[in-house]
This record gives sequence, C-alpha cells and structure tokens, in this order.
Amino acid sequence: MIGPGSTIGILGGGQLGRMTALAAAELGFSCHVFAPEPDSPAFAVARFTRARYDDENALDAFAASVDVVTVEFENIPVAALERLSRTRPVRPGPSVLAIAQDRLAEKRFLSEHGFPVTPFFAVRSAREAVEAARAAGGRAVLKTRRWGYDGRGQRVIASAAEAQAAFEALGGGELVLEAFVPFEREISVITARRSDGARASYPPVENRHERHILKTTTAPAPVSEALAREAVALAEAIAERLGVVGLLAVEMFVAPGDRLLVNELAPRPHNSGHWTQDACAVSQFQQLVRAICDLPLGDARPFAAAVMENLLGEEVERWPQLLAEPGARLHLYGKREVRPGRKMGHVTRLRWDVPLGFTR
Amino acid sequence: MIGPGSTIGILGGGQLGRMTALAAAELGFSCHVFAPEPDSPAFAVARFTRARYDDENALDAFAASVDVVTVEFENIPVAALERLSRTRPVRPGPSVLAIAQDRLAEKRFLSEHGFPVTPFFAVRSAREAVEAARAAGGRAVLKTRRWGYDGRGQRVIASAAEAQAAFEALGGGELVLEAFVPFEREISVITARRSDGARASYPPVENRHERHILKTTTAPAPVSEALAREAVALAEAIAERLGVVGLLAVEMFVAPGDRLLVNELAPRPHNSGHWTQDACAVSQFQQLVRAICDLPLGDARPFAAAVMENLLGEEVERWPQLLAEPGARLHLYGKREVRPGRKMGHVTRLRWDVPLGFTR
Repeated sequence: MIGPGSTIGILGGGQLGRMTALAAAELGFSCHVFAPEPDSPAFAVARFTRARYDDENALDAFAASVDVVTVEFENIPVAALERLSRTRPVRPGPSVLAIAQDRLAEKRFLSEHGFPVTPFFAVRSAREAVEAARAAGGRAVLKTRRWGYDGRGQRVIASAAEAQAAFEALGGGELVLEAFVPFEREISVITARRSDGARASYPPVENRHERHILKTTTAPAPVSEALAREAVALAEAIAERLGVVGLLAVEMFVAPGDRLLVNELAPRPHNSGHWTQDACAVSQFQQLVRAICDLPLGDARPFAAAVMENLLGEEVERWPQLLAEPGARLHLYGKREVRPGRKMGHVTRLRWDVPLGFTR
Repeated sequence: MIGPGSTIGILGGGQLGRMTALAAAELGFSCHVFAPEPDSPAFAVARFTRARYDDENALDAFAASVDVVTVEFENIPVAALERLSRTRPVRPGPSVLAIAQDRLAEKRFLSEHGFPVTPFFAVRSAREAVEAARAAGGRAVLKTRRWGYDGRGQRVIASAAEAQAAFEALGGGELVLEAFVPFEREISVITARRSDGARASYPPVENRHERHILKTTTAPAPVSEALAREAVALAEAIAERLGVVGLLAVEMFVAPGDRLLVNELAPRPHNSGHWTQDACAVSQFQQLVRAICDLPLGDARPFAAAVMENLLGEEVERWPQLLAEPGARLHLYGKREVRPGRKMGHVTRLRWDVPLGFTR
C-alpha cells in the first residue's frame, strides 16, 4: 500500500495531470509531474520536471523522487515507461500503453480476445485502402495507427472511390480502415482496477461530440439497466484482460438492437469522467490515486445525475456567466492560450430530478 | 474583476492556504504562497516564497508577482499587510486583521457597534484580574490579547481567588477577562463579502470542541429558522461594519432563551466551513477566491446536510478505514509530523436523511 505522504509521479502535464495532482493533494499525497511542454497546466499545482521523454537522466532523477508512476495521456513513449518500470511501479504498465497508443494493436487485441469491435482492416497502401473500403461496404473511416485523439488522424470516406485520396491526405504509411457502423449513441464506462484485481466502475454515460471533440457527457446514460450492466461488464472484462492497474475508459457505440461495439480504449482519466468530480463521493481522479496506490477503491455510485459540458476554445469566455449561474460547477485548466477547439475547461450541472435507478 | 489566469497571493502556508490554493486552481487561477515555516502544507500545491513576514525584499517581490493578496490566518503582522497594500489589493485589509488578531480590540469593536458579546474586562495586573473576576461573578475565562486560537492563551477560573494564579500562568501583560456565560451550543456562520458589498452566507452550523479544539461541525445547526436567520444577519452586519472583503467566520454562543453572543471573529476560511467542500456547489475556499476577485459570489445553499469530523493527531491513522467507508469524504493536509491535537485532516459525511429546510 502506498499511503498518503508518498509521491505520485505523473507523466504528462495537461489538464488530466493537473486534476489528478489536485485530487492526490486532497488525500495528502505529493505529486511530481514530468512533461516536455513549457507552461504545462499541471506544473502550477505540483513539483515538476520539464524534459523530453527520451531524456534518460531526467527520467532516472524523476523515478528516484517518486513512489509510483502513472500517466495522464496514453501517448507516452513506451521506452520511457520501460525505463521507469525498472525501479518503480508504473501503473498502468508499458504493455498496456503499447496497445492503447496503437489503433491497430488495440483493435487486434480486442478482436482476438472476443470483444466486439467494428470490422477493421490493416492498410499499408492506397490500393489496400480501396480494397478494404470495398470489403467494408464503401462507407468507412480511415485512421492513422498512432496519435489519434479528438478526431486527429482520421478521414471519413463515403465510398471506396474516396479511399485513395483519404490515404494520401493522412500521409500514407500504416493505417487502419474501420467499417462505418450506424449507431444510436456513444457511451463510455470508466472502470478502476487495482493490482490485486479489485475493481469499481462508474455507470455508463452518453457522450456527444462536435467536430470529433467531446462536447457533452450525460450521466448516467439513458439506456436500459440490462445494457448498462452489459457495458460495465464489458469494460471490466477488458481491463482484466489487459491487466490495467489504474483507470480504463472504454468508449462504445450502441448499434441498433442494443448491440455494443468497442470504439476506443484510454487507460487514464477520461474527459467523459469529469462529471464524477461533482456527482460522486470519489472522483475518477481520486479513484486513479486509490487504484495505483493499492488503497480501497471508492464508491463509484453517483449521488446525482449530471451533465458535463466542455468549454472549447473561445467558449471559455463564458466564465463570468457560468460563475453567476446558481449550482453550475465551473472548472478551468489555467491554459494561457485560447486556440479553436482547445479544451479550456468544463462545467458540470447536477440534475436532481433525474432518477438514478440502479446506478445508485 | 480579477479573472482566471491571475495570481492570488496567500499569506500563510497551513491547511487553509493549501485548500484555498487547490480551490483557486480549480478555477484556473495561479497561487503564490508566502510563509516562514519550512514544509508548509501549501507549498506543495503552488509556487511559494519561504521568508519571514518582516523580510521587506521578499514581501516586495511577492507583491510584484501577484494580482491580489489574501490571508489564511489572522495573525499575520499588520506591518507586512500594510506594506503589501501599497501596491496590491490586500483582502481582507490590514485594519480588519488588526482587530481580529487582538481579542481586546475585537471585543471593543463588537460592543462599541452594538453587537452582543459576553461581558469583558481589560486587565493589566493581577489585582485588576481579581477585581474583574469579582465583577464578572467569579467564573470567568482569562485570555491573552494575541495569538489565541485552538484554546491557546486562555485559562478558565472558577472563582476570583484563582484569578491571580491564572494571570501569572499566562505570563501577565495585557489580558482580557471574559465572564463565563452558560450556553446551550456554539454555532458559527461564514459569510462572504465583496468590495461592492455583495454578500453570501452559508447557513449556521453547530461546533463541538474537545480540549478547546474543534472536533465536529454539524451542518446545518439544529436551531430554529428564526435563530438561524438572526445568526446570519448578525454575521453579515459585522462583516459590513468591519468592511471585510473576503470571508468572515463568526463564532457565537447560543445562550438560554436563544440569545446570541459573539465569541470570536476570523476573517478567513474557517475549520467550521470545511463541510462546504462536499455539501455545496461552491466551497468556502472557492467563495473566498470569488469574493477577493470581485467575481459573482457562489450559491451558499447546501445540497445535503453534513457532519465534518476533524482528524487530530494520531486520529489521522484511521485513514485506511475512512477510505474504505462508502460515501466518506477524506481530506488530508500532507503534514509530515503527527503531533497531539494537530489538525492532520478531516472527513465529511453527507446526511441525505436530514431535511435542509429553509437553508436550501
């Protein structure tokens, strides 16, 4: 057990690292943030090292200063995680990150273990892209294997004829083509898992995107109890099979007939879990701390329904109105530069009139 | 208006400064903590300066780095506050702190403005102490003028005959003797006030002490609506008369016949307001940030009743059980050294079965 007073190392300095550090501080932990970007939002609330992920001296000094290492971001180079794991527990481990940062490896992992995914094809040339699009029925999404989030590195194609242009637009190389699946809604489940296998899951939530960026999360998702239970069981089974220690966010499509298809995995705090800060006794950030430190996992049942709205780019300028709105919970990330689509903050509104049903 | 992205200077580095810094970070503010003690709990979550309060160079550099200054502790030397206030807004201002750090000045201020206080006497000699004790009816409390909190600097006397020994035990000098008043309970109100006079108050809470140190706070206090409204009106009137910008905690005795007597003022976040972190949309710490930055004050109505329990000294070792208790909200301050009676953390439990009545 890694107790309060210990130091948690966090790789990545964005808002997820910042909110993890704030949650860790509430439990009396210290944090040490490691990130290459200047002005990383998490630097303001913890000790920090600004260095590249391939700076071995900096990594070694970081490891020496912490009791456990976690990530706020799945795209940390695996070599860095492996180096750190020689001397410190790295949770989740390098093998989990290796899968989660590669869309093709992730799809293969899921399908090979019997988890439902949309049909997918590995593509290494424009010709393969066209063939795969045909096999997928024409409508499809072509994606890069790496560095895909918030809609980056993907192109929607309406027919096989568009596959070549999409392949080239993405810069070629190794890509993944996914069949287009009509779906009714997108949901996600965040599950926490400890090294001894103990687990706790927040109820499924519904996510709506604007221009591929999460705009709102509604908790709990308006789905049947049976489907909610199935989604939680699916997320927990994936976390178990992956051997995640920490958090795993599982994004899923609900296809017609209440069929679940896994879309994406993120082994870290997730934007669709921000509502837990305001509607649960233990937030996803505190839950991450508990999971990686082998502490008792917290109660993941909400005490109220909630809607979380992201403040993207200039939307953050609404902060004076949001501060004046009774009951609105505003969270800002301290980012200096406003860029279009950049996640600047979020606001959570509790809904006391929505029954929580079995999730409570 | 001092907006998110600005830097808040905090004088004092204890748990109140730490929780203020965490709340400010949630709204996208930066903080700069100034305190003389090494290992100050607030240093771990913000930029900090470790220096004495009479280090003028350090004070000037601190002022230059912040947009507004506040305090977590009323016993900051007034000279430091006055120096800072030449170049930056200091909220609450030096004149408020001058009154709040001197028990005699505080009692005089209150009584001269018609606020109800227990009978009190200024005492400068053992003979005056004995005379005052007689005038007070025998039972009384003798207190130092300065540095009184958590029961420090006071002696209870059962009769005038004990006054001389108590005077000597407190080291003599200038003291205050307060008549002993039988009371039914002790309550407190935390009110926020902005520079334009706008205000918001949390409902009265009941406080219970052990060995003069706060042990539990029950929110809301089990008092009549009329008494609760009177207590809030009293706190707001004192804040207005003092010209507080920020928070004012007003401790009061409820004497027989529902008569309120002001016991003590604290122009800063207060231990009896920690429950607001878990039971209100806006905590006392975020409310302080809003008040000193001229932002809209937050909704101070609780969404649930709550009981806050302080973890004093070795009680903090109960943290594993508290983490395992469903719904318990644990807050630890990151203090390395456990000392008897030291405030190490607190735990808040929400009570959904207690009606909030008019406070909601």
